[in-house]
Amino acid sequence: MRFGEKLSRIVKKNNSLLCVGLDTDIELIPKSLLKEPNPILAFNQMMINATSDLVCAYKLNSAFYEAAGSLGLEVLKQTKNYIPADIPVIIDAKRCDIENTSKMYARLFFEDFGFDGITVNPYMGFDAVKPFIEYKDKYVFILCLTSNTGADDFQTYGTEPLYIRVARFVCKWNENGNCGLVVGATKPEGLVKVREITPELLILVPGIGTQGGKVESVVKYGGQNIIINSSRAIIYASSGQDFAQKAREAAVKLRDEINKYRRNI
Amino acid sequence: MRFGEKLSRIVKKNNSLLCVGLDTDIELIPKSLLKEPNPILAFNQMMINATSDLVCAYKLNSAFYEAAGSLGLEVLKQTKNYIPADIPVIIDAKRCDIENTSKMYARLFFEDFGFDGITVNPYMGFDAVKPFIEYKDKYVFILCLTSNTGADDFQTYGTEPLYIRVARFVCKWNENGNCGLVVGATKPEGLVKVREITPELLILVPGIGTQGGKVESVVKYGGQNIIINSSRAIIYASSGQDFAQKAREAAVKLRDEINKYRRNI
Repeated sequence: MRFGEKLSRIVKKNNSLLCVGLDTDIELIPKSLLKEPNPILAFNQMMINATSDLVCAYKLNSAFYEAAGSLGLEVLKQTKNYIPADIPVIIDAKRCDIENTSKMYARLFFEDFGFDGITVNPYMGFDAVKPFIEYKDKYVFILCLTSNTGADDFQTYGTEPLYIRVARFVCKWNENGNCGLVVGATKPEGLVKVREITPELLILVPGIGTQGGKVESVVKYGGQNIIINSSRAIIYASSGQDFAQKAREAAVKLRDEINKYRRNI
Repeated sequence: MRFGEKLSRIVKKNNSLLCVGLDTDIELIPKSLLKEPNPILAFNQMMINATSDLVCAYKLNSAFYEAAGSLGLEVLKQTKNYIPADIPVIIDAKRCDIENTSKMYARLFFEDFGFDGITVNPYMGFDAVKPFIEYKDKYVFILCLTSNTGADDFQTYGTEPLYIRVARFVCKWNENGNCGLVVGATKPEGLVKVREITPELLILVPGIGTQGGKVESVVKYGGQNIIINSSRAIIYASSGQDFAQKAREAAVKLRDEINKYRRNI
Protein backbone atom coordinates (compact mmCIF):
# COMPACT_ATOMS: atom_id res chain seq x y z
CA MET A 1 0.00 0.00 0.00
CA ARG A 2 1.23 3.51 -0.78
CA PHE A 3 2.24 5.75 2.10
CA GLY A 4 -0.49 8.32 1.39
CA GLU A 5 -3.22 5.68 1.50
CA LYS A 6 -1.81 4.11 4.65
CA LEU A 7 -1.62 7.52 6.31
CA SER A 8 -5.19 8.51 5.30
CA ARG A 9 -6.59 5.32 6.81
CA ILE A 10 -4.83 5.68 10.15
CA VAL A 11 -5.58 9.42 10.38
CA LYS A 12 -9.25 8.47 10.07
CA LYS A 13 -9.10 5.37 12.30
CA ASN A 14 -7.27 7.09 15.17
CA ASN A 15 -8.68 10.55 14.41
CA SER A 16 -5.18 11.89 14.77
CA LEU A 17 -2.46 13.97 13.11
CA LEU A 18 -0.07 13.20 15.94
CA CYS A 19 3.26 11.52 15.30
CA VAL A 20 5.16 10.30 18.35
CA GLY A 21 8.94 10.54 18.08
CA LEU A 22 10.66 7.55 19.65
CA ASP A 23 13.97 9.34 20.22
CA THR A 24 14.89 7.09 23.08
CA ASP A 25 17.95 7.92 25.14
CA ILE A 26 19.18 5.32 27.63
CA GLU A 27 20.07 8.16 30.03
CA LEU A 28 16.53 9.52 30.09
CA ILE A 29 14.38 6.40 30.45
CA PRO A 30 13.11 5.35 33.89
CA LYS A 31 15.83 3.69 35.94
CA SER A 32 13.51 0.76 36.69
CA LEU A 33 13.89 -0.38 33.05
CA LEU A 34 17.66 -0.73 33.26
CA LYS A 35 17.26 -4.23 34.69
CA GLU A 36 15.54 -5.37 31.46
CA PRO A 37 17.73 -7.32 29.01
CA ASN A 38 17.07 -4.62 26.40
CA PRO A 39 15.98 -1.42 28.18
CA ILE A 40 15.49 0.77 25.08
CA LEU A 41 13.39 -1.82 23.30
CA ALA A 42 11.35 -2.42 26.46
CA PHE A 43 10.75 1.34 26.78
CA ASN A 44 9.77 1.66 23.12
CA GLN A 45 7.37 -1.26 23.36
CA MET A 46 5.67 0.31 26.36
CA MET A 47 5.43 3.65 24.52
CA ILE A 48 3.91 1.96 21.47
CA ASN A 49 1.45 0.00 23.61
CA ALA A 50 0.45 3.24 25.35
CA THR A 51 -0.03 5.35 22.21
CA SER A 52 -0.70 3.19 19.12
CA ASP A 53 -4.45 4.03 19.11
CA LEU A 54 -3.66 7.76 19.33
CA VAL A 55 -1.15 8.40 16.54
CA CYS A 56 -1.04 8.65 12.76
CA ALA A 57 2.67 7.77 12.61
CA TYR A 58 5.82 7.12 14.57
CA LYS A 59 9.13 8.81 13.85
CA LEU A 60 12.49 7.34 14.91
CA ASN A 61 15.56 9.52 14.78
CA SER A 62 18.36 7.30 13.52
CA ALA A 63 21.03 9.10 15.58
CA PHE A 64 19.60 7.78 18.84
CA TYR A 65 19.96 4.19 17.61
CA GLU A 66 23.24 4.57 15.72
CA ALA A 67 24.70 6.06 18.90
CA ALA A 68 24.32 2.65 20.54
CA GLY A 69 26.41 0.98 17.81
CA SER A 70 25.54 -2.38 16.30
CA LEU A 71 23.14 -3.27 19.13
CA GLY A 72 21.33 0.02 18.48
CA LEU A 73 20.58 -0.94 14.89
CA GLU A 74 19.02 -4.18 16.13
CA VAL A 75 16.82 -2.20 18.50
CA LEU A 76 15.86 0.10 15.63
CA LYS A 77 14.74 -2.89 13.59
CA GLN A 78 12.98 -4.56 16.51
CA THR A 79 11.14 -1.32 17.33
CA LYS A 80 10.05 -0.88 13.70
CA ASN A 81 8.79 -4.47 13.65
CA TYR A 82 6.89 -4.04 16.92
CA ILE A 83 4.82 -1.12 15.60
CA PRO A 84 1.40 -2.26 14.27
CA ALA A 85 1.61 -2.69 10.50
CA ASP A 86 -1.14 -0.17 9.76
CA ILE A 87 0.84 2.73 11.28
CA PRO A 88 3.43 4.43 9.02
CA VAL A 89 6.92 4.65 10.49
CA ILE A 90 9.29 7.44 9.46
CA ILE A 91 13.04 7.20 9.89
CA ASP A 92 14.40 10.66 10.68
CA ALA A 93 17.80 10.18 9.06
CA LYS A 94 18.34 13.55 7.29
CA ARG A 95 20.63 11.85 4.78
CA CYS A 96 21.83 13.04 1.38
CA ASP A 97 24.81 12.03 -0.73
CA ILE A 98 25.77 11.53 -4.36
CA GLU A 99 23.36 9.30 -6.26
CA ASN A 100 25.17 5.96 -5.85
CA THR A 101 25.51 6.54 -2.12
CA SER A 102 21.96 7.79 -1.58
CA LYS A 103 20.86 4.55 -3.26
CA MET A 104 22.58 2.58 -0.50
CA TYR A 105 20.82 4.61 2.19
CA ALA A 106 17.46 4.18 0.43
CA ARG A 107 17.94 0.41 0.18
CA LEU A 108 19.01 0.23 3.82
CA PHE A 109 16.13 2.18 5.31
CA PHE A 110 13.33 1.21 2.91
CA GLU A 111 14.19 -2.40 2.06
CA ASP A 112 16.28 -3.76 4.93
CA PHE A 113 14.46 -1.94 7.74
CA GLY A 114 11.11 -1.53 6.00
CA PHE A 115 10.50 2.08 6.99
CA ASP A 116 7.59 3.82 5.24
CA GLY A 117 9.07 7.29 5.09
CA ILE A 118 12.37 9.11 5.54
CA THR A 119 13.66 12.63 6.09
CA VAL A 120 16.23 13.83 3.54
CA ASN A 121 18.49 16.90 3.32
CA PRO A 122 18.11 18.94 0.08
CA TYR A 123 21.54 20.64 0.03
CA MET A 124 22.98 18.40 -2.72
CA GLY A 125 19.94 18.78 -5.00
CA PHE A 126 17.80 16.45 -7.06
CA ASP A 127 20.13 13.57 -7.89
CA ALA A 128 20.87 13.09 -4.18
CA VAL A 129 17.13 12.86 -3.40
CA LYS A 130 16.03 10.86 -6.46
CA PRO A 131 17.06 7.40 -5.21
CA PHE A 132 14.63 7.82 -2.30
CA ILE A 133 11.78 9.16 -4.46
CA GLU A 134 12.11 6.18 -6.80
CA TYR A 135 10.51 4.01 -4.14
CA LYS A 136 6.97 4.96 -5.13
CA ASP A 137 5.25 3.38 -2.13
CA LYS A 138 7.57 5.16 0.30
CA TYR A 139 7.49 8.81 1.33
CA VAL A 140 10.30 11.34 1.31
CA PHE A 141 10.16 14.37 3.62
CA ILE A 142 12.67 16.96 2.45
CA LEU A 143 14.04 19.43 5.00
CA CYS A 144 12.67 22.85 4.11
CA LEU A 145 12.56 25.18 7.13
CA THR A 146 13.89 23.54 10.27
CA SER A 147 12.96 24.33 13.86
CA ASN A 148 16.44 25.20 15.16
CA THR A 149 17.99 28.67 15.48
CA GLY A 150 20.64 27.93 12.80
CA ALA A 151 17.86 27.70 10.23
CA ASP A 152 18.35 31.42 9.63
CA ASP A 153 21.98 31.03 8.59
CA PHE A 154 21.07 29.72 5.14
CA GLN A 155 17.44 28.62 4.84
CA THR A 156 15.85 32.06 5.08
CA TYR A 157 18.55 33.76 3.04
CA GLY A 158 18.09 35.07 -0.50
CA THR A 159 15.80 37.26 -2.62
CA GLU A 160 13.76 34.11 -2.92
CA PRO A 161 14.66 32.54 0.44
CA LEU A 162 16.32 29.13 0.12
CA TYR A 163 13.51 27.30 1.92
CA ILE A 164 10.96 28.73 -0.53
CA ARG A 165 13.11 27.60 -3.42
CA VAL A 166 13.36 24.14 -1.83
CA ALA A 167 9.56 23.99 -1.48
CA ARG A 168 9.14 24.99 -5.14
CA PHE A 169 11.65 22.40 -6.33
CA VAL A 170 10.09 19.65 -4.24
CA CYS A 171 6.74 20.37 -5.95
CA LYS A 172 8.51 19.70 -9.27
CA TRP A 173 10.21 16.56 -7.93
CA ASN A 174 6.87 15.16 -6.78
CA GLU A 175 5.97 13.25 -9.97
CA ASN A 176 5.42 10.06 -7.97
CA GLY A 177 3.24 11.89 -5.44
CA ASN A 178 5.52 10.80 -2.60
CA CYS A 179 7.37 13.98 -1.63
CA GLY A 180 6.67 16.08 1.42
CA LEU A 181 8.41 18.80 3.41
CA VAL A 182 9.73 19.33 6.91
CA VAL A 183 8.75 22.73 8.33
CA GLY A 184 9.42 23.45 12.00
CA ALA A 185 6.59 24.47 14.33
CA THR A 186 8.75 27.28 15.64
CA LYS A 187 8.44 29.11 12.30
CA PRO A 188 4.68 29.71 11.72
CA GLU A 189 5.37 32.53 9.24
CA GLY A 190 7.35 30.06 7.18
CA LEU A 191 4.46 27.63 7.21
CA VAL A 192 2.22 30.37 5.81
CA LYS A 193 4.63 31.05 2.95
CA VAL A 194 5.15 27.36 2.17
CA ARG A 195 1.37 26.90 2.03
CA GLU A 196 1.14 29.76 -0.50
CA ILE A 197 3.39 27.73 -2.78
CA THR A 198 1.88 24.33 -2.12
CA PRO A 199 -1.55 24.05 -0.54
CA GLU A 200 -1.49 20.25 -0.83
CA LEU A 201 2.01 18.87 -0.08
CA LEU A 202 2.18 16.78 3.10
CA ILE A 203 4.21 18.58 5.78
CA LEU A 204 5.95 16.95 8.72
CA VAL A 205 6.09 19.46 11.56
CA PRO A 206 8.60 18.93 14.37
CA GLY A 207 9.33 21.42 17.13
CA ILE A 208 6.10 21.31 19.13
CA GLY A 209 6.54 21.25 22.89
CA THR A 210 10.14 21.19 24.11
CA GLN A 211 11.33 23.35 21.21
CA GLY A 212 8.53 25.89 21.74
CA GLY A 213 6.23 25.58 18.69
CA LYS A 214 2.52 26.34 19.13
CA VAL A 215 -0.15 23.85 18.06
CA GLU A 216 -2.74 26.48 17.20
CA SER A 217 -0.64 28.29 14.60
CA VAL A 218 0.67 25.03 13.11
CA VAL A 219 -2.86 23.76 12.43
CA LYS A 220 -4.17 27.17 11.40
CA TYR A 221 -1.41 27.73 8.82
CA GLY A 222 -0.54 24.13 7.93
CA GLY A 223 -4.07 22.84 7.41
CA GLN A 224 -5.21 19.20 7.48
CA ASN A 225 -2.38 17.73 5.43
CA ILE A 226 0.22 17.77 8.18
CA ILE A 227 1.82 15.37 10.62
CA ILE A 228 2.72 16.98 13.94
CA ASN A 229 5.60 15.33 15.74
CA SER A 230 6.25 15.40 19.44
CA SER A 231 9.06 13.41 21.02
CA ARG A 232 10.42 14.39 24.41
CA ALA A 233 7.22 16.01 25.75
CA ILE A 234 5.42 12.69 25.32
CA ILE A 235 7.92 9.90 25.92
CA TYR A 236 9.52 11.61 28.90
CA ALA A 237 6.27 13.00 30.35
CA SER A 238 7.16 11.23 33.61
CA SER A 239 10.17 9.34 34.91
CA GLY A 240 8.19 7.69 37.69
CA GLN A 241 6.54 4.26 37.77
CA ASP A 242 3.58 5.72 35.87
CA PHE A 243 5.68 6.83 32.88
CA ALA A 244 3.69 4.84 30.29
CA GLN A 245 0.36 6.12 31.61
CA LYS A 246 1.68 9.70 31.67
CA ALA A 247 2.98 9.34 28.11
CA ARG A 248 -0.49 8.20 27.06
CA GLU A 249 -2.10 11.16 28.83
CA ALA A 250 0.31 13.58 27.13
CA ALA A 251 -0.47 12.00 23.75
CA VAL A 252 -4.24 12.18 24.33
CA LYS A 253 -3.92 15.81 25.35
CA LEU A 254 -1.86 16.80 22.32
CA ARG A 255 -3.99 14.80 19.87
CA ASP A 256 -7.13 16.43 21.25
CA GLU A 257 -5.59 19.88 21.18
CA ILE A 258 -4.67 19.38 17.51
CA ASN A 259 -8.20 18.16 16.77
CA LYS A 260 -9.76 21.15 18.52
CA TYR A 261 -7.97 23.50 16.13
CA ARG A 262 -8.64 21.20 13.14
CA ARG A 263 -12.37 21.76 13.63
CA ASN A 264 -11.86 25.51 13.17
CA ILE A 265 -10.23 25.36 9.73
CA MET B 1 47.51 15.53 18.58
CA ARG B 2 45.39 18.01 16.63
CA PHE B 3 44.18 17.04 13.17
CA GLY B 4 46.10 19.85 11.44
CA GLU B 5 49.39 18.78 13.02
CA LYS B 6 48.77 15.11 12.25
CA LEU B 7 47.94 15.97 8.64
CA SER B 8 51.03 18.19 8.18
CA ARG B 9 53.32 15.42 9.40
CA ILE B 10 51.89 12.75 7.12
CA VAL B 11 51.75 15.10 4.11
CA LYS B 12 55.49 15.61 4.61
CA LYS B 13 56.34 12.00 5.44
CA ASN B 14 54.46 10.49 2.48
CA ASN B 15 54.91 13.56 0.25
CA SER B 16 51.26 13.30 -0.59
CA LEU B 17 47.96 15.17 -0.75
CA LEU B 18 46.13 12.01 -1.78
CA CYS B 19 43.25 10.62 0.27
CA VAL B 20 42.05 7.13 -0.63
CA GLY B 21 38.32 6.58 -0.21
CA LEU B 22 37.55 3.13 1.16
CA ASP B 23 33.99 3.01 -0.18
CA THR B 24 33.97 -0.73 -0.30
CA ASP B 25 31.04 -2.48 -1.95
CA ILE B 26 30.76 -6.25 -1.54
CA GLU B 27 29.49 -6.47 -5.12
CA LEU B 28 32.58 -4.81 -6.56
CA ILE B 29 35.44 -6.50 -4.73
CA PRO B 30 37.29 -9.40 -6.36
CA LYS B 31 35.30 -12.64 -6.19
CA SER B 32 38.32 -14.45 -4.78
CA LEU B 33 37.84 -12.56 -1.49
CA LEU B 34 34.32 -13.84 -0.95
CA LYS B 35 35.70 -17.00 0.67
CA GLU B 36 37.28 -14.90 3.45
CA PRO B 37 35.38 -14.85 6.77
CA ASN B 38 35.07 -11.06 6.43
CA PRO B 39 35.54 -10.12 2.75
CA ILE B 40 35.14 -6.33 3.12
CA LEU B 41 37.59 -6.12 6.00
CA ALA B 42 40.06 -8.34 4.12
CA PHE B 43 39.76 -6.08 1.05
CA ASN B 44 40.21 -2.92 3.12
CA GLN B 45 43.27 -4.34 4.88
CA MET B 46 44.87 -5.18 1.53
CA MET B 47 44.10 -1.67 0.24
CA ILE B 48 45.62 -0.10 3.35
CA ASN B 49 48.72 -2.32 3.11
CA ALA B 50 49.07 -1.34 -0.55
CA THR B 51 48.68 2.44 -0.09
CA SER B 52 49.52 3.55 3.46
CA ASP B 53 52.91 4.98 2.44
CA LEU B 54 51.27 6.96 -0.38
CA VAL B 55 48.41 8.81 1.28
CA CYS B 56 47.81 11.76 3.60
CA ALA B 57 44.43 10.43 4.76
CA TYR B 58 41.76 7.79 4.31
CA LYS B 59 38.08 8.58 3.91
CA LEU B 60 35.34 6.08 4.65
CA ASN B 61 31.81 6.78 3.46
CA SER B 62 29.51 5.65 6.25
CA ALA B 63 26.73 4.59 3.85
CA PHE B 64 28.79 1.70 2.52
CA TYR B 65 29.19 0.29 6.04
CA GLU B 66 25.72 1.14 7.36
CA ALA B 67 24.29 -0.65 4.31
CA ALA B 68 25.65 -3.91 5.70
CA GLY B 69 23.74 -3.45 8.97
CA SER B 70 25.23 -4.21 12.37
CA LEU B 71 28.07 -6.29 10.90
CA GLY B 72 28.96 -3.31 8.69
CA LEU B 73 29.53 -1.07 11.71
CA GLU B 74 31.94 -3.64 13.12
CA VAL B 75 33.85 -3.63 9.82
CA LEU B 76 33.89 0.17 9.91
CA LYS B 77 35.47 0.08 13.36
CA GLN B 78 37.92 -2.69 12.46
CA THR B 79 38.99 -0.82 9.32
CA LYS B 80 39.53 2.39 11.28
CA ASN B 81 41.60 0.49 13.82
CA TYR B 82 43.70 -1.19 11.15
CA ILE B 83 44.83 2.12 9.62
CA PRO B 84 48.27 3.21 10.96
CA ALA B 85 47.75 5.69 13.80
CA ASP B 86 49.72 8.48 12.10
CA ILE B 87 47.27 8.69 9.17
CA PRO B 88 44.11 10.81 9.70
CA VAL B 89 40.86 9.00 8.96
CA ILE B 90 37.80 10.94 7.82
CA ILE B 91 34.28 9.56 8.13
CA ASP B 92 32.21 10.82 5.21
CA ALA B 93 28.87 10.89 7.01
CA LYS B 94 27.36 14.19 5.76
CA ARG B 95 25.29 14.43 8.92
CA CYS B 96 23.44 17.38 10.41
CA ASP B 97 20.59 17.61 12.89
CA ILE B 98 19.40 19.75 15.76
CA GLU B 99 22.05 20.35 18.40
CA ASN B 100 21.15 17.51 20.79
CA THR B 101 21.09 15.02 17.95
CA SER B 102 24.27 16.27 16.28
CA LYS B 103 25.92 15.75 19.67
CA MET B 104 25.05 12.07 19.50
CA TYR B 105 26.56 11.76 16.02
CA ALA B 106 29.70 13.62 17.14
CA ARG B 107 30.12 11.33 20.13
CA LEU B 108 29.54 8.24 17.99
CA PHE B 109 32.00 9.07 15.22
CA PHE B 110 34.68 10.92 17.22
CA GLU B 111 34.62 9.08 20.57
CA ASP B 112 33.26 5.59 19.89
CA PHE B 113 34.87 5.08 16.49
CA GLY B 114 37.80 7.45 16.97
CA PHE B 115 37.64 9.12 13.57
CA ASP B 116 39.84 12.21 13.13
CA GLY B 117 37.54 14.13 10.81
CA ILE B 118 33.97 14.14 9.53
CA THR B 119 31.94 15.63 6.70
CA VAL B 120 28.91 17.65 7.78
CA ASN B 121 25.97 19.18 5.90
CA PRO B 122 25.49 22.95 6.50
CA TYR B 123 21.76 23.23 5.63
CA MET B 124 20.61 23.52 9.27
CA GLY B 125 23.18 26.18 10.17
CA PHE B 126 25.58 26.78 13.03
CA ASP B 127 23.95 25.02 15.97
CA ALA B 128 23.77 21.79 13.95
CA VAL B 129 27.50 21.98 13.18
CA LYS B 130 28.70 23.25 16.58
CA PRO B 131 28.69 19.89 18.43
CA PHE B 132 31.25 18.60 15.93
CA ILE B 133 33.43 21.73 16.05
CA GLU B 134 33.57 21.51 19.84
CA TYR B 135 35.94 18.56 19.52
CA LYS B 136 39.01 20.76 19.07
CA ASP B 137 41.39 17.96 18.06
CA LYS B 138 38.99 16.71 15.39
CA TYR B 139 38.31 18.25 12.00
CA VAL B 140 34.97 19.17 10.43
CA PHE B 141 34.64 19.39 6.66
CA ILE B 142 31.47 21.28 5.78
CA LEU B 143 29.82 20.60 2.42
CA CYS B 144 30.23 23.74 0.33
CA LEU B 145 30.09 22.97 -3.41
CA THR B 146 29.55 19.30 -4.13
CA SER B 147 30.66 17.35 -7.20
CA ASN B 148 27.24 16.10 -8.32
CA THR B 149 24.93 17.67 -10.94
CA GLY B 150 22.27 18.54 -8.33
CA ALA B 151 24.74 20.97 -6.74
CA ASP B 152 23.29 23.62 -9.07
CA ASP B 153 19.76 23.29 -7.68
CA PHE B 154 20.59 25.24 -4.53
CA GLN B 155 24.33 25.64 -3.91
CA THR B 156 25.04 28.00 -6.81
CA TYR B 157 21.81 29.93 -6.41
CA GLY B 158 21.53 33.48 -5.08
CA THR B 159 22.97 36.96 -5.58
CA GLU B 160 25.66 35.72 -3.26
CA PRO B 161 25.56 32.03 -4.22
CA LEU B 162 24.75 29.74 -1.30
CA TYR B 163 28.11 27.94 -1.45
CA ILE B 164 29.94 31.26 -1.16
CA ARG B 165 27.80 32.16 1.84
CA VAL B 166 28.58 28.78 3.37
CA ALA B 167 32.32 29.34 2.82
CA ARG B 168 32.08 32.78 4.45
CA PHE B 169 30.16 31.44 7.44
CA VAL B 170 32.56 28.54 7.92
CA CYS B 171 35.42 31.06 8.16
CA LYS B 172 33.50 32.69 11.04
CA TRP B 173 32.78 29.32 12.67
CA ASN B 174 36.46 28.40 12.59
CA GLU B 175 37.42 29.77 16.01
CA ASN B 176 38.97 26.44 16.99
CA GLY B 177 40.90 26.24 13.74
CA ASN B 178 39.29 22.90 12.92
CA CYS B 179 36.84 23.71 10.12
CA GLY B 180 37.34 22.94 6.46
CA LEU B 181 35.23 22.75 3.32
CA VAL B 182 34.22 20.16 0.75
CA VAL B 183 34.51 21.47 -2.82
CA GLY B 184 34.09 19.04 -5.71
CA ALA B 185 36.83 18.64 -8.30
CA THR B 186 34.21 18.90 -11.04
CA LYS B 187 33.71 22.60 -10.21
CA PRO B 188 37.12 24.32 -10.70
CA GLU B 189 35.50 27.76 -11.07
CA GLY B 190 33.95 27.24 -7.63
CA LEU B 191 37.33 26.40 -6.17
CA VAL B 192 38.67 29.71 -7.55
CA LYS B 193 35.86 31.67 -5.89
CA VAL B 194 36.17 29.81 -2.58
CA ARG B 195 39.91 30.54 -2.54
CA GLU B 196 39.16 34.27 -3.04
CA ILE B 197 37.23 34.13 0.23
CA THR B 198 39.58 31.89 2.14
CA PRO B 199 43.14 31.36 0.94
CA GLU B 200 43.95 29.19 3.96
CA LEU B 201 41.01 26.93 4.86
CA LEU B 202 41.69 23.22 4.33
CA ILE B 203 39.60 21.87 1.44
CA LEU B 204 38.64 18.25 0.90
CA VAL B 205 38.21 17.68 -2.83
CA PRO B 206 36.23 14.64 -4.02
CA GLY B 207 35.22 13.99 -7.62
CA ILE B 208 38.60 13.23 -9.22
CA GLY B 209 38.62 10.30 -11.65
CA THR B 210 35.29 8.47 -12.01
CA GLN B 211 33.32 11.69 -11.53
CA GLY B 212 35.44 13.59 -14.08
CA GLY B 213 37.37 16.21 -12.07
CA LYS B 214 40.83 17.23 -13.34
CA VAL B 215 43.87 17.11 -11.07
CA GLU B 216 45.66 20.02 -12.74
CA SER B 217 42.90 22.57 -12.14
CA VAL B 218 42.26 21.32 -8.59
CA VAL B 219 45.90 21.88 -7.59
CA LYS B 220 46.24 25.12 -9.57
CA TYR B 221 43.15 26.69 -7.99
CA GLY B 222 43.07 24.88 -4.63
CA GLY B 223 46.75 25.33 -3.71
CA GLN B 224 48.73 23.27 -1.19
CA ASN B 225 46.11 23.19 1.56
CA ILE B 226 43.90 20.56 0.00
CA ILE B 227 43.20 16.85 0.36
CA ILE B 228 42.32 15.18 -2.94
CA ASN B 229 40.14 12.11 -2.58
CA SER B 230 39.89 9.25 -5.02
CA SER B 231 37.85 6.15 -4.27
CA ARG B 232 36.68 3.91 -7.10
CA ALA B 233 39.51 4.71 -9.54
CA ILE B 234 42.00 3.40 -6.99
CA ILE B 235 40.34 0.61 -5.04
CA TYR B 236 38.70 -0.93 -8.11
CA ALA B 237 41.66 -0.34 -10.46
CA SER B 238 41.57 -4.06 -11.21
CA SER B 239 39.28 -6.95 -10.35
CA GLY B 240 41.92 -9.57 -11.18
CA GLN B 241 44.33 -11.38 -8.87
CA ASP B 242 46.62 -8.34 -9.04
CA PHE B 243 44.00 -5.93 -7.62
CA ALA B 244 46.14 -4.79 -4.67
CA GLN B 245 49.17 -4.15 -6.86
CA LYS B 246 47.03 -2.27 -9.41
CA ALA B 247 45.48 -0.17 -6.63
CA ARG B 248 48.98 0.72 -5.47
CA GLU B 249 50.01 1.67 -9.02
CA ALA B 250 46.91 3.85 -9.42
CA ALA B 251 47.68 5.55 -6.09
CA VAL B 252 51.33 6.15 -7.02
CA LYS B 253 50.27 7.59 -10.35
CA LEU B 254 47.71 9.96 -8.85
CA ARG B 255 49.98 11.04 -5.99
CA ASP B 256 52.77 11.81 -8.45
CA GLU B 257 50.43 13.64 -10.80
CA ILE B 258 49.26 15.81 -7.91
CA ASN B 259 52.88 16.46 -6.88
CA LYS B 260 53.86 17.39 -10.44
CA TYR B 261 51.31 20.21 -10.40
CA ARG B 262 52.19 21.15 -6.80
CA ARG B 263 55.70 22.04 -7.96
CA ASN B 264 54.24 24.60 -10.39
CA ILE B 265 52.36 26.66 -7.83
